[in-house]
Amino acid sequence: MPNIDVCLSPQLIGQYGAEGKIVVVVDILRATSCMVTAFANGVTCILPVETVEECAEFKTKGHLTAAEREGKIVDGFEIGNSPFSYLQPNIKGQTIGITTTNGTKAIKLSAAAEQILIGAFLNKTVIAQYLLAQNKDVLIVCAGWKNKMNLEDTLFAGALVSLLETSFISVNDSAVASKVLYEAAKNNLFAFVTQNSSHYKRLKNLNLDKDIAFCLQQDIYQVIPTMKGSEMVAMQLTAANSK
Amino acid sequence: MPNIDVCLSPQLIGQYGAEGKIVVVVDILRATSCMVTAFANGVTCILPVETVEECAEFKTKGHLTAAEREGKIVDGFEIGNSPFSYLQPNIKGQTIGITTTNGTKAIKLSAAAEQILIGAFLNKTVIAQYLLAQNKDVLIVCAGWKNKMNLEDTLFAGALVSLLETSFISVNDSAVASKVLYEAAKNNLFAFVTQNSSHYKRLKNLNLDKDIAFCLQQDIYQVIPTMKGSEMVAMQLTAANSK
Repeated sequence: MPNIDVCLSPQLIGQYGAEGKIVVVVDILRATSCMVTAFANGVTCILPVETVEECAEFKTKGHLTAAEREGKIVDGFEIGNSPFSYLQPNIKGQTIGITTTNGTKAIKLSAAAEQILIGAFLNKTVIAQYLLAQNKDVLIVCAGWKNKMNLEDTLFAGALVSLLETSFISVNDSAVASKVLYEAAKNNLFAFVTQNSSHYKRLKNLNLDKDIAFCLQQDIYQVIPTMKGSEMVAMQLTAANSK
Repeated sequence: MPNIDVCLSPQLIGQYGAEGKIVVVVDILRATSCMVTAFANGVTCILPVETVEECAEFKTKGHLTAAEREGKIVDGFEIGNSPFSYLQPNIKGQTIGITTTNGTKAIKLSAAAEQILIGAFLNKTVIAQYLLAQNKDVLIVCAGWKNKMNLEDTLFAGALVSLLETSFISVNDSAVASKVLYEAAKNNLFAFVTQNSSHYKRLKNLNLDKDIAFCLQQDIYQVIPTMKGSEMVAMQLTAANSK
């Protein structure tokens, strides 16, 4: 059986190793939730970059640009890090440059993977179905908060482990720890996150409860964003690669 | 209120910062459980070192030496990493050089702390009482397994957070995640660890169930090992520094 592991902080990727694996990058609040929402609503391409400066350059190429730091939109950018920005009709068919505090960094650090998928509660089951059809080692990379673990990304990892555990093995403890955490939280994910998450406490002052409730919805989208070189695109799902 | 944090891997210590804090180092299976057992049974001093070579040098000084790698005693050393070794009458009054796969490394990486305590389930409550009396920031450093998180150290962290949470705050998520994990496991810690821990699966082949059952006993000892420079000694507990 293939292996499944959970990397609780981008700083630990080297300990687990991305080489030859399918990596699922997750940053529930809010980068990967935004990316899934974007593709589900017709965005053609996302260009994730680590720095605000790189992101600003995309403006000169006529792209939309989204930049977030410390939970807030960076001055001079059209879009911050709210999934509702990607529900606007004007984003259809666009290419969007994105930089965020944690999520885009986790994507870059996963570059050695055979394939990088973008996961969120919003597309959790379609991701699980795709992984079940591949029969390859999986590493879930939690973006966390500034290289520390966070609750919401670990909860997503636990949810995915729950869906996959009968077809995968794990030789490390973070997969089972994530699953136990998810089991404790799953009956009321919103209450669990808003009562316990430090990042929620950061965002609370920014009045983002609506964003958080949106990001904790499960399986409303059937799209899997994936990296093709430095570009993120929607994967073409077929009966052959998903079950 | 002072802060409490849990560092799930020694590699993440830099993210949390040990400076000015009381660090509790934990390696339940089995380094810190052994150290607590050693001092509870009359060992005078432990010299924790990172390499087998450094440890071997202590022999020439007439000290006992304990060396473990991959769960097994290293050839040429008197003691491995079993707490039962420290229940022998011949260890009373001795100085012991120790090196282990994960635990001694975690101690070295915590060197910037104001004070380093050695924690285990065996002395959990006396550690909590001491910390409650100090009113200082606390960082629990889990030794983990080769820089990955592990279950048993995280469970100890959760147990300690449970005892301290009304007198400490936490701005990061690993403290609450550890506590939730402990809550799920506490009614049958031995079953939880033996069913789920990857390190248990490693040790199982070495027939160490007796060791593991010993290390999961709670509060059988009232001793707190602490670092004085490069030496580990038993803290002198008084009514003033413990409550």
